[in-house]
Amino acid sequence: MQPGKGRKGKSLKQRLVLKSSLAKETISEFLGTFIMIVLGCGSVAQAILSRGHFGGIITINVGFAMAVVMAIYVTGGVSGGHINPAVSLAMCLFGRMKWFKFPFYVGAQFLGAFAGAATLFGIYYDGLMSFAGGKLLIVGENATAHIFATYPAPYLSLTNAFADQVVATMFLLMIVFAIFDSRNLGVPRGLEPIAIGLLIIVISSSLGLNSGCAMNPARDLSPRLFTALAGWGFEVFTAGNNFWWIPVVGPLVGAVIGGLIYVLVIEIHHPNPDPDFETEQSEDKPDKYELSVIM
Amino acid sequence: MQPGKGRKGKSLKQRLVLKSSLAKETISEFLGTFIMIVLGCGSVAQAILSRGHFGGIITINVGFAMAVVMAIYVTGGVSGGHINPAVSLAMCLFGRMKWFKFPFYVGAQFLGAFAGAATLFGIYYDGLMSFAGGKLLIVGENATAHIFATYPAPYLSLTNAFADQVVATMFLLMIVFAIFDSRNLGVPRGLEPIAIGLLIIVISSSLGLNSGCAMNPARDLSPRLFTALAGWGFEVFTAGNNFWWIPVVGPLVGAVIGGLIYVLVIEIHHPNPDPDFETEQSEDKPDKYELSVIM
Amino acid sequence: MQPGKGRKGKSLKQRLVLKSSLAKETISEFLGTFIMIVLGCGSVAQAILSRGHFGGIITINVGFAMAVVMAIYVTGGVSGGHINPAVSLAMCLFGRMKWFKFPFYVGAQFLGAFAGAATLFGIYYDGLMSFAGGKLLIVGENATAHIFATYPAPYLSLTNAFADQVVATMFLLMIVFAIFDSRNLGVPRGLEPIAIGLLIIVISSSLGLNSGCAMNPARDLSPRLFTALAGWGFEVFTAGNNFWWIPVVGPLVGAVIGGLIYVLVIEIHHPNPDPDFETEQSEDKPDKYELSVIM
Amino acid sequence: MQPGKGRKGKSLKQRLVLKSSLAKETISEFLGTFIMIVLGCGSVAQAILSRGHFGGIITINVGFAMAVVMAIYVTGGVSGGHINPAVSLAMCLFGRMKWFKFPFYVGAQFLGAFAGAATLFGIYYDGLMSFAGGKLLIVGENATAHIFATYPAPYLSLTNAFADQVVATMFLLMIVFAIFDSRNLGVPRGLEPIAIGLLIIVISSSLGLNSGCAMNPARDLSPRLFTALAGWGFEVFTAGNNFWWIPVVGPLVGAVIGGLIYVLVIEIHHPNPDPDFETEQSEDKPDKYELSVIM
Repeated sequence: MQPGKGRKGKSLKQRLVLKSSLAKETISEFLGTFIMIVLGCGSVAQAILSRGHFGGIITINVGFAMAVVMAIYVTGGVSGGHINPAVSLAMCLFGRMKWFKFPFYVGAQFLGAFAGAATLFGIYYDGLMSFAGGKLLIVGENATAHIFATYPAPYLSLTNAFADQVVATMFLLMIVFAIFDSRNLGVPRGLEPIAIGLLIIVISSSLGLNSGCAMNPARDLSPRLFTALAGWGFEVFTAGNNFWWIPVVGPLVGAVIGGLIYVLVIEIHHPNPDPDFETEQSEDKPDKYELSVIM
Repeated sequence: MQPGKGRKGKSLKQRLVLKSSLAKETISEFLGTFIMIVLGCGSVAQAILSRGHFGGIITINVGFAMAVVMAIYVTGGVSGGHINPAVSLAMCLFGRMKWFKFPFYVGAQFLGAFAGAATLFGIYYDGLMSFAGGKLLIVGENATAHIFATYPAPYLSLTNAFADQVVATMFLLMIVFAIFDSRNLGVPRGLEPIAIGLLIIVISSSLGLNSGCAMNPARDLSPRLFTALAGWGFEVFTAGNNFWWIPVVGPLVGAVIGGLIYVLVIEIHHPNPDPDFETEQSEDKPDKYELSVIM
Repeated sequence: MQPGKGRKGKSLKQRLVLKSSLAKETISEFLGTFIMIVLGCGSVAQAILSRGHFGGIITINVGFAMAVVMAIYVTGGVSGGHINPAVSLAMCLFGRMKWFKFPFYVGAQFLGAFAGAATLFGIYYDGLMSFAGGKLLIVGENATAHIFATYPAPYLSLTNAFADQVVATMFLLMIVFAIFDSRNLGVPRGLEPIAIGLLIIVISSSLGLNSGCAMNPARDLSPRLFTALAGWGFEVFTAGNNFWWIPVVGPLVGAVIGGLIYVLVIEIHHPNPDPDFETEQSEDKPDKYELSVIM
Repeated sequence: MQPGKGRKGKSLKQRLVLKSSLAKETISEFLGTFIMIVLGCGSVAQAILSRGHFGGIITINVGFAMAVVMAIYVTGGVSGGHINPAVSLAMCLFGRMKWFKFPFYVGAQFLGAFAGAATLFGIYYDGLMSFAGGKLLIVGENATAHIFATYPAPYLSLTNAFADQVVATMFLLMIVFAIFDSRNLGVPRGLEPIAIGLLIIVISSSLGLNSGCAMNPARDLSPRLFTALAGWGFEVFTAGNNFWWIPVVGPLVGAVIGGLIYVLVIEIHHPNPDPDFETEQSEDKPDKYELSVIM
């Protein structure tokens, strides 16, 4: 197939190609969040449904982290691989993405997470049915709702729960900003997803005890809604003193704080101008320092 | 030894060199699949024969994944390191390999897996003999057949088992396509095997509970045949409601679906032409988008 | 925002930018040590407060190592990512950093570690309170003081404890020098933090039994002081036969020995001059071989 | 310090510099093997002396592998980081190293391993003394001899034990040759040690059950001799039906077979000449295909 040849008329392939960059990015975020939920929540499912015989804290932490890594490899070159409304918010707020894309990204993330939860439910349908004699439970040793969404530890107050999600997501974004900062030490191009995977491993190993370290509104709310509809019932929302809104609001607040700390403590002091800045601003990132300029 | 000197007459080395590219690739796929089975199934063997004292779900998942990594490092530069008929099928279907090579690749993979199973049996002969008083069992706590082939969980229906193998291999191929897509984020050249290893770790940690996540007809069928002949008996084929064909057919279906999703959702929308495309098509990959062109 | 436009007058951003290199480096070391303590000691906290259900030796070793990796990614391009007075001492002694910076680095490290301990205390406040009925204990099965600082094994004499910290830090610095030695095998630029993470994993797995492998005066002393003030009491200093000074003095001695071994056994024998040497010496590293020159 | 300045007279540094390449390489192999034993056997020590509370199969496998990684980072640019007589033998036999260096490399490896065992004994002196009431035992649940050297599983015959060491080292060398083969897929420069570390993890996870997977005469014999002298007694040599010679002879045989398989199945069929070959042969590697030429 030489250029100009074999492309007479509109082939099916040509008709399938998305011309709109935003459409590509939206479908990419959908697919990425879908992958993260199937493989990430799947790691939790394997540990719980095997009652710890074929999984545990290590396979869950590594599995969820690598699920994120793979989601970013699939989508990073197209949509940046946010797969998290809190990340998209920080990217917009600090001038890494235009605001008009925000609702499309977030919508795709919520839909992708819902589809992922449904797919995982299908793959483990027989396992879920046999686990508790056909019952889908939220609490107790036969509970399975926490395969899909996070629930707080018994000791946790709402204040501490909120602080926990804020601080965890603060660390997530602060370090994600560092990983992609080419004027800092610099992760080699193409290995950023693996650095982010290692970051998720350490946050899950250190700040995961309070409430499972969701750090992502789409990752938590969509699967929770799915479980409510699929048979666990709407107690998934009232459980843990109406905990459900904490991993939705907390990460959004934490992402902003984390990005702000990185920008204020490290990024704005870099002596050399950002080599990526001139070229990128003309198209997509014209207002990188919008926030600090506003201040 | 300067060029043109010391090579008068045909040396033994010259006589050993394979001139045919296909012959090289066939022997390479044989060796790669052999390595994967000895080290991969070996990780299962160590966990089972030590009754969990020197291995478990983590060493099995990491061991099998790293066995694949090493097999790809040994063979990737020669035959592409498929070591899996489902991968070879997807590569042919999406124009990454010519169809006439397919039977050679698949034949070598099945033979390599059989040789690997026999070698592993030899290395652990004393261990296998002492494990269950000289008996080679398929079920029960002294079973050892699942060292070599996969068997379904007790709760699993055939429908769910088939869906499980389709979906797991779908994720495998979808993400393998992303890892090698130089127009996406891009794993640095030479590190693709390690990214694939991490991918296998997460799939084994998340989708491994139903039936051990074979995702590879050669990896499962050849060692199963070996166990049938080596003393476990042909019940290895009837076990689990004649489960044996699921990890043979399921991965082939899943690989096609996974490749198709990646191509349709991500690859065909890339704005720039594939930099590898022009040069490579003249020799080996003239029909990269054959499938979508056909459509 | 084009160059020269939108920057009339002094914007808030311009007023926030640190002109002094030393000020940037000091705040960077503060942030790096803060990150290391929250995520590193956090990994210990998760294991202890869950009584091993959501953490153990593996998540602690990997978590602490990856906490260091992330701290270096955040700070490495600004201050070198020492986050350890023993590292800063070796860097000064072997001509990698000017001596006048030493007190600023070390001060920032101690303050950052203290702030990190306080933050971690806040995140796990509910967990700590419920763990031992509101008591903050140093010894026994309900002890929590070792979340923050290290304590010796019961069998350990002070002599062996001191040798342990010297030898562990000796290995740390010897291998850190190798990792950054571009005339040796050479870790690819941007991946040095991950190599250091793997180094910390192996040292924690091999030399961690005697006393927890602090290898860092700031990592140990500041959190210990915090626990003394926060309710555990000043017995944190007298515990283990006044063990507290061992992980302060031992690492300083070990770092010097480790650097010296690497320089004497490997570095000074390199045949080619250091490619980084000529350019760098003019500004910051004029006295790289100061020590051996002095000798 | 400009070239030609500040170097009048012979400074101490100049007097310390080794002019002889062989002397540098010998001392480098000593240091590398020393590091491998302290950190690698140290990982075994931590698991055994803590009776599994602070280590187990995972920390041992990962710890030993990363000990090798670190030893190669320290020595790879100077002596190639063999740290194993079986590796040095294969390198000589396949023309990667001149034969006259062989006894120096091997001697340094045995001495370095002995020094490493002695150092580890010192670091864990208090722990070893308290573990079995002051006794240093070879068998039983209070045994500590296997911290230093490997011993066979009870079920293992000498024939199977020998085959085990041959096959394990065969895989080690076959894949090490692939990792360093720039005409194959190619591990990126500077990351070969990490690929070797992953290789050791998988071999230890799959072929480690029979007899602990020494694959290295120096790693096994020198620490065994140390234990004989340090108080465990010369039963360390007679134990396991005089097992001691298996991990000495087996690896040498396996290394030759492994290298031969890689050369015959993969390397000699590469279409393009080795880019490293022309330049390197003039100095150090004139007889790369000596063996196959001889054939």
